[in-house]
Amino acid sequence: MPVLVMKFGGTSVATLDRIRRAAKRVGVEVAKGYDVIVIVSAMSGKTNELVGWVNEISPLYDAREYDAVVSSGENITAGLMALTLQEMNVPARSWQGWQVPLMTNSAHSSARIEEIPTDNLNAKFGEGMRVAVVAGFQGISPEGRITTLGRGGSDTTAVAFAAAFGAERCDIYTDVDGVYTTDPRISSKARKLDKIAFEEMLELASLGAKVLQTRSVELAMRYNVRLRVLSSFEEQSDDAGTLVCAEEEIMESNVVSGIAYSRDEAKMTLISVADRPGIAAAIFGPLSDAGVNVDMIIQNIAEEGRTDMTFSCPTDQVKRAEKALQEAKEKGEINYHDLVADTDVAKISAVGIGMRSQSGVAAKMFKTLSDEGVNIKVIATSEIKISVLVDRKYMELAVQALHDAFELDKAA
Amino acid sequence: MPVLVMKFGGTSVATLDRIRRAAKRVGVEVAKGYDVIVIVSAMSGKTNELVGWVNEISPLYDAREYDAVVSSGENITAGLMALTLQEMNVPARSWQGWQVPLMTNSAHSSARIEEIPTDNLNAKFGEGMRVAVVAGFQGISPEGRITTLGRGGSDTTAVAFAAAFGAERCDIYTDVDGVYTTDPRISSKARKLDKIAFEEMLELASLGAKVLQTRSVELAMRYNVRLRVLSSFEEQSDDAGTLVCAEEEIMESNVVSGIAYSRDEAKMTLISVADRPGIAAAIFGPLSDAGVNVDMIIQNIAEEGRTDMTFSCPTDQVKRAEKALQEAKEKGEINYHDLVADTDVAKISAVGIGMRSQSGVAAKMFKTLSDEGVNIKVIATSEIKISVLVDRKYMELAVQALHDAFELDKAA
Repeated sequence: MPVLVMKFGGTSVATLDRIRRAAKRVGVEVAKGYDVIVIVSAMSGKTNELVGWVNEISPLYDAREYDAVVSSGENITAGLMALTLQEMNVPARSWQGWQVPLMTNSAHSSARIEEIPTDNLNAKFGEGMRVAVVAGFQGISPEGRITTLGRGGSDTTAVAFAAAFGAERCDIYTDVDGVYTTDPRISSKARKLDKIAFEEMLELASLGAKVLQTRSVELAMRYNVRLRVLSSFEEQSDDAGTLVCAEEEIMESNVVSGIAYSRDEAKMTLISVADRPGIAAAIFGPLSDAGVNVDMIIQNIAEEGRTDMTFSCPTDQVKRAEKALQEAKEKGEINYHDLVADTDVAKISAVGIGMRSQSGVAAKMFKTLSDEGVNIKVIATSEIKISVLVDRKYMELAVQALHDAFELDKAA
Repeated sequence: MPVLVMKFGGTSVATLDRIRRAAKRVGVEVAKGYDVIVIVSAMSGKTNELVGWVNEISPLYDAREYDAVVSSGENITAGLMALTLQEMNVPARSWQGWQVPLMTNSAHSSARIEEIPTDNLNAKFGEGMRVAVVAGFQGISPEGRITTLGRGGSDTTAVAFAAAFGAERCDIYTDVDGVYTTDPRISSKARKLDKIAFEEMLELASLGAKVLQTRSVELAMRYNVRLRVLSSFEEQSDDAGTLVCAEEEIMESNVVSGIAYSRDEAKMTLISVADRPGIAAAIFGPLSDAGVNVDMIIQNIAEEGRTDMTFSCPTDQVKRAEKALQEAKEKGEINYHDLVADTDVAKISAVGIGMRSQSGVAAKMFKTLSDEGVNIKVIATSEIKISVLVDRKYMELAVQALHDAFELDKAA
């Protein structure tokens, strides 16, 4: 029988009533003829409680014990979900990570999945089990200890199972009903997308549309797992939510699919850097070593032999960046007059695979912002994305204007 | 290094502070040179919460899923205890049942321990680990699924580990500071026993002194595991609590060690049963089939060819007993005039291994009760126990009088 993976997040299994509602959705898919693998998170709040206890006992905790403790929330939900399905006469059983076994490396608390053997679950499907309820977020290390995949790891678990079992689709049930052209709280014209390409979703996710874990989208793209994001709080039709899929599946699309934004980006400028071959490496090497996630980089030649270097990074990494650059300067590795941090900016991005084949998108974006009197501080582009930094006070205005200009309220 | 097993019940690990206090006790034993195996229960209240959820979802639950859910409380405590010990610089790690592995049969929710291989833990002790924190109450079935040992199973886990590892002693930390000559709430003269024989403890436990699970005492007796019951809420000396041990270790003891009582016993009398060979089997067979735990049995010949048959059973099984006997009568298997249930009785027992060699204990017991005007309704005796049923209103009086008569307030 075809396999479907369904993942329910913490808010979707927060109470016994919600577990029942989720189980009903599973029952609908079973009735359609699917063998279903359900991936569950911990009931919302449970994991935070456990993490809080671990931190209170031991701020520099042993990650192996952390994993043993925090993985228990998912085990509870898995058992309760299996019982709920059985009560609805759906043959189901629960699986903890080590029982599958979902094999990971030994990087406790942020382990990577190495293999998911399919024989154990398939044997049970062969015996008439219709639903395997698997505790998300966890696995087992080569040493036989429990590992976790890091926060949000249940999305990744779901996609990995879909890939391993060749599932027809991986449905991610969450508390939003899909992916929007922009944040509906900022633009009332925001429209839910029926489909979006993996590449677009990756850009939107890393830009702050926190519907799916970036890692799970990457995995889905690599194994071509069709991902559907939908709400567990609404009655569902077959085409509910947003399908995240390969570009080839999307017949028609707007040039721009969505407008993303981020408030948590800071602009940092090194003024009058002594320019020489290898200077970029000398600046960004220490930043990388210090764990600073540099996003946009711009270099302007200011005068002969000297240059200004501007980059952006998350606001909460500004102090770390300043320290790393200061130390590099003291060691004589780089030389600059001044370092200016501007944390009062926002990043606005237009994302769309259509940009690859269509020119004029950047020009239209710049003109739109200019018409609204929004000054652009930094520009960066990739194949399917144009990002600008603007003063934070213009953020909502810029998002709304761009959403209008690219007519995202209208389907392609 | 010699091995010590220490078990902490739910109230002893109810909060992070209490886990810290328990960990300090463990640290004291490690400092003495022991390799320690710590068995932990779930934080108090946790297991009840999980059991409540399972019952709410599915009153006739799949015991395999029940076990998967309710075993998670112990896993949490095990990890938290290991972290707390590490924070005190004691090399420790947690073990879930399947990791040891503690192998059981497949009788989910009341599984029996089949084997505890020692190689995994011993390998870690060999590498410098000083404390193995093991989640109590759980194991793994031959099918690779999680099993639980039934309520109170953590005591049994502790004794089984002590037997498997040849531990010097198994310390059971709980919320009482030992085993008393009788319930201190009933007699202010109740005295804590320093030592008590396994056989005596078994009689006291099954008679209502609910300090230790009967099953764990049976196991301790079979493998001669020295069990110490002590409080986790008091500073401990080396001879704190009560040692439950083989008779040979007890040099001096009173003829009677303790006076136990039970309010939950009912007296049932079948009046004028047609007497014939096999009549006892015809009566008690159906009761056994109905799950009625018959304790005392008395037969009186009332008239030629007819007899009265009296027995006791737990009060909450009276309805079940009546139904079973009524059905046997309707089928013509037995014949009686009437069935009278008296639930207004209490059972009082004097227990002591000294009775084996000393006569006159029963006579002294009966005279004491008679002097107090307490009428005895049923008498039953075993090698080390004399039990009587009396009107419930005399229970406290009878316990106090017997405690005085056998001078239990004085050590031997």
